[in-house]
Amino acid sequence: MHDTEETKNIMEYETVALDDEDSALVVIDQTKLPTATELLHLHTAQEIWDAIYLLKVRGAPAIGVAAAFGVYLLAKGIDEQDYESFYRKFCEYKDYLNSARPTAVNLSWALARMERVCADNRELPVAKIKQKLKETAVAMKEEDIRVCRAIGEHGLSLVKPGDGILTHCNAGQLATCKYGTATAPIYLGQERGYHFRVFADETRPLLQGARLTAYELQASGVDVTLLCDNMCSAVMRNGWINAVFVGCDRVAANGDTANKIGTSVVAAVAKRCHVPFYVCAPTSTIDMDTPTGADIVIEERPAHEVTDMWYEKPMAPAGVKVFNPAFDVTDNDLITAIVTEHGVLRPPYTAAFRELFASLQN
Amino acid sequence: MHDTEETKNIMEYETVALDDEDSALVVIDQTKLPTATELLHLHTAQEIWDAIYLLKVRGAPAIGVAAAFGVYLLAKGIDEQDYESFYRKFCEYKDYLNSARPTAVNLSWALARMERVCADNRELPVAKIKQKLKETAVAMKEEDIRVCRAIGEHGLSLVKPGDGILTHCNAGQLATCKYGTATAPIYLGQERGYHFRVFADETRPLLQGARLTAYELQASGVDVTLLCDNMCSAVMRNGWINAVFVGCDRVAANGDTANKIGTSVVAAVAKRCHVPFYVCAPTSTIDMDTPTGADIVIEERPAHEVTDMWYEKPMAPAGVKVFNPAFDVTDNDLITAIVTEHGVLRPPYTAAFRELFASLQN
Repeated sequence: MHDTEETKNIMEYETVALDDEDSALVVIDQTKLPTATELLHLHTAQEIWDAIYLLKVRGAPAIGVAAAFGVYLLAKGIDEQDYESFYRKFCEYKDYLNSARPTAVNLSWALARMERVCADNRELPVAKIKQKLKETAVAMKEEDIRVCRAIGEHGLSLVKPGDGILTHCNAGQLATCKYGTATAPIYLGQERGYHFRVFADETRPLLQGARLTAYELQASGVDVTLLCDNMCSAVMRNGWINAVFVGCDRVAANGDTANKIGTSVVAAVAKRCHVPFYVCAPTSTIDMDTPTGADIVIEERPAHEVTDMWYEKPMAPAGVKVFNPAFDVTDNDLITAIVTEHGVLRPPYTAAFRELFASLQN
Repeated sequence: MHDTEETKNIMEYETVALDDEDSALVVIDQTKLPTATELLHLHTAQEIWDAIYLLKVRGAPAIGVAAAFGVYLLAKGIDEQDYESFYRKFCEYKDYLNSARPTAVNLSWALARMERVCADNRELPVAKIKQKLKETAVAMKEEDIRVCRAIGEHGLSLVKPGDGILTHCNAGQLATCKYGTATAPIYLGQERGYHFRVFADETRPLLQGARLTAYELQASGVDVTLLCDNMCSAVMRNGWINAVFVGCDRVAANGDTANKIGTSVVAAVAKRCHVPFYVCAPTSTIDMDTPTGADIVIEERPAHEVTDMWYEKPMAPAGVKVFNPAFDVTDNDLITAIVTEHGVLRPPYTAAFRELFASLQN
């Protein structure tokens, strides 16, 4: 099920890909980083679901593309040739994958888009539908790369060479197909000699900031300093941070944003320290069907992630109660701007979103 | 140098004590908790310095008492019988112990008080001075217990039965000689059936909240839930927290407070969520010689505490830069009240402190 390759730079791998035989979804096992770079070859629905649930592939955009490739592979394996039987099985797979994680909109968004491919092409032979599913998944991956690069360009307009940038969790290349969202301005700035000083929150409990963000930025030659999450105030008080960039899992219609647990903490501190706080959001992450942050379902995860997942010895008393929400909601008034592939949106967000979506439909 | 005893409840041990033969400073090795309860018997200046620097004994009040007992034991071993020679050696020991940690005022406060015992009794034989040093150290320990209990009484007046209380780091029994400072209201409430729901931040990087606070509260039968530091916003937004109680390492004359890294993060979030934020401070922690928080020296500690101290495998890329301040400063405007053994002080703090110290001199 996996290879281990220790020699290549992490940046040379694709976060999410189909293998050459079109038979497996290939992802980097992000739970093994930075110790080992293992590629997972996923074939079954259970393997794909596990990879998403266990965060072997994670990051809202990457999950979306992985789910699209995954449901294509599963659809490809459906034997039924009549549309109704095929579609029924497709929906079973889709609903199963969709149940892996509730908070990021990209998972359900990507799967819904794949389902529409079936519905819109129901008159075609099933083999053709499968081909269109593949084309759509490939297109989604290419779009993700274009979208992230565009977010990077718009984000880069908000900072200047030499700036200190803080980011939380990993909204990096490893969370997308390339560039990342929050890291896209950093990577584009790196290409252009901006010499940012980047500060990466380690992001407990799963340490995506330490294991993934610090890792991929360091591998790309970016000047990165690792912090514990509770040090964001210290660095902002020291005047070291000119901007915060974070990703997001779902943006409600009023601009309230669900992102990795602790994001709202950074936002509150940034507000107090007069540091601009930018959410990098592909428009696919903006969910006009969710009115406010209070309507976003927040995934809770197991206690052992906090108490002993990474530790050599017990780091908490046996049997202690643990609260382990995977995300929190940042209120719209803490967000200076939302950076999309179509430009930088400012409050009030509901109006800005409506205007954006109206312009996209024209 | 140490015993391991696994059977006694942690609450039955004294955090800091002299052994029965008056020959060793006995402390619980807090770096081993919660896995093992090891008592360290410290004899030499180097052993005592190491125990403080390496956080085997930690918590501002406990460090103060440990330093007082420690410098007494070292003074006891000075052979010189003439005052000047004795005093010179005493000061060497004092300065050495004082260099172990810079931020908490209690260390220098306790050692200065012990030095005054020498200076005030210079006419006495050295053997008598040594006796007075012991009496003073013992008195400081008894005072610490009385002070913490009084802080508990005043703190308890700020909350009501059933309240949710959040605390950061360990300002508990393990940080003092009994009761703790931030935990004193919790323990007194527990004695009186208040049934608090306590939330303990794990407190990266050294996990004093997970390893010590959750441990001692659980051992005392308190309803405690462990959180990662970045979850403080989630629980406050959920409406689960009625008050935050934290300890402190040094309070400046204007009320700015240095405490464990991340305290100012909790304070900023509490302010935003309209949750009262209380600093529990023995008056010995209030340092009128330090005008503001900007004048407090913040200790920085080694990178490995963040990247690999507790971990089974590398949790960050090799060689990554790390910023690891042990404390941060919470601005006075984020502090609802400062709870001392003499009562609850409200802003403006400079005036409140002056009034308090004036009343104590009368």
